[in-house]
Amino acid sequence: MTDFAHTRSQFHLPDGLVYLDGNSLGPLPVAARARIAGLLDDEWGEMLIRGWNEAGWMAMPEHVGERIGRLIGAGSGTVVTGDTLSIKLYQALAAALDLRTGRRIVLSDHGNFPSDLHMARGLMHTLGRGHELRLVAPEAVTQALDDTVAVLMLTEVDYRTGRLHDMAELTRAAHAAGALTVWDLAHSAGALPVDLEGADADFAVGCTYKFLNGGPGAPAFIYVAPRHIDRVTPVLAGWLGHEAPFAFDLDYRPGPGIARMRVGTPSIPGLAVLDAALEVWEGVSISDVRARSVELSETFIHEVERRCPALELVSPRNAHRRGSQVTWRFAGACSFMQALNDRGVVGDFRPPDMMRFGITPLYLDAGDIMRAARVMETLMTERGWDRSRRTGTMT
Amino acid sequence: MTDFAHTRSQFHLPDGLVYLDGNSLGPLPVAARARIAGLLDDEWGEMLIRGWNEAGWMAMPEHVGERIGRLIGAGSGTVVTGDTLSIKLYQALAAALDLRTGRRIVLSDHGNFPSDLHMARGLMHTLGRGHELRLVAPEAVTQALDDTVAVLMLTEVDYRTGRLHDMAELTRAAHAAGALTVWDLAHSAGALPVDLEGADADFAVGCTYKFLNGGPGAPAFIYVAPRHIDRVTPVLAGWLGHEAPFAFDLDYRPGPGIARMRVGTPSIPGLAVLDAALEVWEGVSISDVRARSVELSETFIHEVERRCPALELVSPRNAHRRGSQVTWRFAGACSFMQALNDRGVVGDFRPPDMMRFGITPLYLDAGDIMRAARVMETLMTERGWDRSRRTGTMT
Repeated sequence: MTDFAHTRSQFHLPDGLVYLDGNSLGPLPVAARARIAGLLDDEWGEMLIRGWNEAGWMAMPEHVGERIGRLIGAGSGTVVTGDTLSIKLYQALAAALDLRTGRRIVLSDHGNFPSDLHMARGLMHTLGRGHELRLVAPEAVTQALDDTVAVLMLTEVDYRTGRLHDMAELTRAAHAAGALTVWDLAHSAGALPVDLEGADADFAVGCTYKFLNGGPGAPAFIYVAPRHIDRVTPVLAGWLGHEAPFAFDLDYRPGPGIARMRVGTPSIPGLAVLDAALEVWEGVSISDVRARSVELSETFIHEVERRCPALELVSPRNAHRRGSQVTWRFAGACSFMQALNDRGVVGDFRPPDMMRFGITPLYLDAGDIMRAARVMETLMTERGWDRSRRTGTMT
Repeated sequence: MTDFAHTRSQFHLPDGLVYLDGNSLGPLPVAARARIAGLLDDEWGEMLIRGWNEAGWMAMPEHVGERIGRLIGAGSGTVVTGDTLSIKLYQALAAALDLRTGRRIVLSDHGNFPSDLHMARGLMHTLGRGHELRLVAPEAVTQALDDTVAVLMLTEVDYRTGRLHDMAELTRAAHAAGALTVWDLAHSAGALPVDLEGADADFAVGCTYKFLNGGPGAPAFIYVAPRHIDRVTPVLAGWLGHEAPFAFDLDYRPGPGIARMRVGTPSIPGLAVLDAALEVWEGVSISDVRARSVELSETFIHEVERRCPALELVSPRNAHRRGSQVTWRFAGACSFMQALNDRGVVGDFRPPDMMRFGITPLYLDAGDIMRAARVMETLMTERGWDRSRRTGTMT
């Protein structure tokens, strides 16, 4: 059984704060301090250029990728870290389209994170081969899959509502339609069990500054199924994805396996902090995290609905259809969230009218959840918002 | 007059080491320690998500870009940092080709860094519009410019030989031929005066872990001339290049000016370290740095040639045609450099037979240079290499 008191002790949490925004930026893992000091003093400071080999910097994108792989059901040698989620998505989608040259449709949903859609459109424009983005409602994805779809590109957990797609089922449906899948795990990795191999996913990408607590702008990751990797011609053919970077060949030959998805020189401070953050996961069961997340979320929904009837739950009520966040809609969401933050309960406002709360059992407990609900109730009463009616889609 | 004793005191240099590899990875600026500790403890640790605004993280790519801009002759609002050099090159070349749609040739030279060529080929393959890379010898660039050339893409200082292109002259020639320019400043920024505006350059990119001492994998930068920026449609259309990232629009609208060359969430630890490293440049004149670099390089060449006649100078003998490095060719270069490193004189081996030494006046003085030359002489004598003849292009 995961010891959540122990995991909580591994984070620095400001006094008096209930932090329900770990789905935007996880808090500081205490181990990051010593790790980054060691990187500067013992590695960069003393080893200088030799750090790339002697301190293992060169291998960090794969090393850290292995640690993430274990949390998302990816086999050894299938995940590498680096760059940003937007860049990794571009690489994955380009590779997927290149494996489905006869088709022109990229299917996604309105709940996808805008950057994924922007990057996809940018890629399609660059390709100039008539690809189109087909955007449907999250519930309509399966029926929109037909034999024109090259790639199904989805974020598993909707960043606003927390709605959770069924990765296994949708991947099966995509494959049945002859399409490949690109899954964005931004709100999945570290939030709930992900089984990329079990779901037979083709490509996956994610960021690490949310539920993996890697810090602001922490490196992203990419997964490529072993059955595809040797056929992937990297669209971003950077030298560190080359078979022999230090031969300095003028011709590009992709490196073996997932290494070819590396691009340029990776951010070592970013990787070092992330690596320290991933140490928290030693001895932690992601199933335990999920169970605790559901328990805390159910309590939160129950308590907030009881105390703040003006809020309309946007997240799925069924815990199995929900990621590790709870979102409510409210006409005064923006100012309400501001006032909440001022009272030490931190969540996110997402336009036009949503309040989003991340549930992160590694460092949140039932006491935090109850306190958040009480502060929300007090605020509602003080502002007279408790007499508001539900606002539907009012903006 | 720049106080080089003061600049030297701002770096941590291991005892007994002569570090002639600052053109691969600059040493640790002492200020980076406090800066990164402050980022972790005072910003991320205490502000959490608020750090993006309150600690200024969101504006760091532009803020740090301004500081770099002052070192490369770029006006305010024309440089932004982030990602890696390979990614920034991809963005710049894509933008340049998009402004020259009627032409199909990207002209570069054999001395360009391989990753630039790989990224260019990857882009051309993705575009699928018949673009070709024309590679010529560095001396043959001007005569290879004709009305088929869309973009002249060069690294100003050759990473192996240190040969320095004439940016102003080549840019003039490119424009006369109707082409645009993309300059890679990897071995220029912080090494010698660069005047992007004076040279009328179109695009420029660079890394910051060499002469700018930003640390392993520090963020890259990109410059776009103001006359082009509003016509650039970003090929990597990430959300932080959007006009209003936090509106979460499903449609992409590029941000104002250089901000559109941002892509995903930037590495804040990387930017913080780089920002601290750039503080060393306060009160430093890049012309003084250049003058001292030439002085140290001339001494080094003179002393090494006198003591080690088996070495063949590969770098231009004329200091005005040379960047801030000195390279010799020698059949035993690989093992010689290994032995040199073991004796505390650190340079780089570059295949097949080159020994490269970076000259970095911010923290190197004449005593270091003399010591390096003496150690090289001793080693040559001990190994009996002093009786070797020059080896030409032997590998």
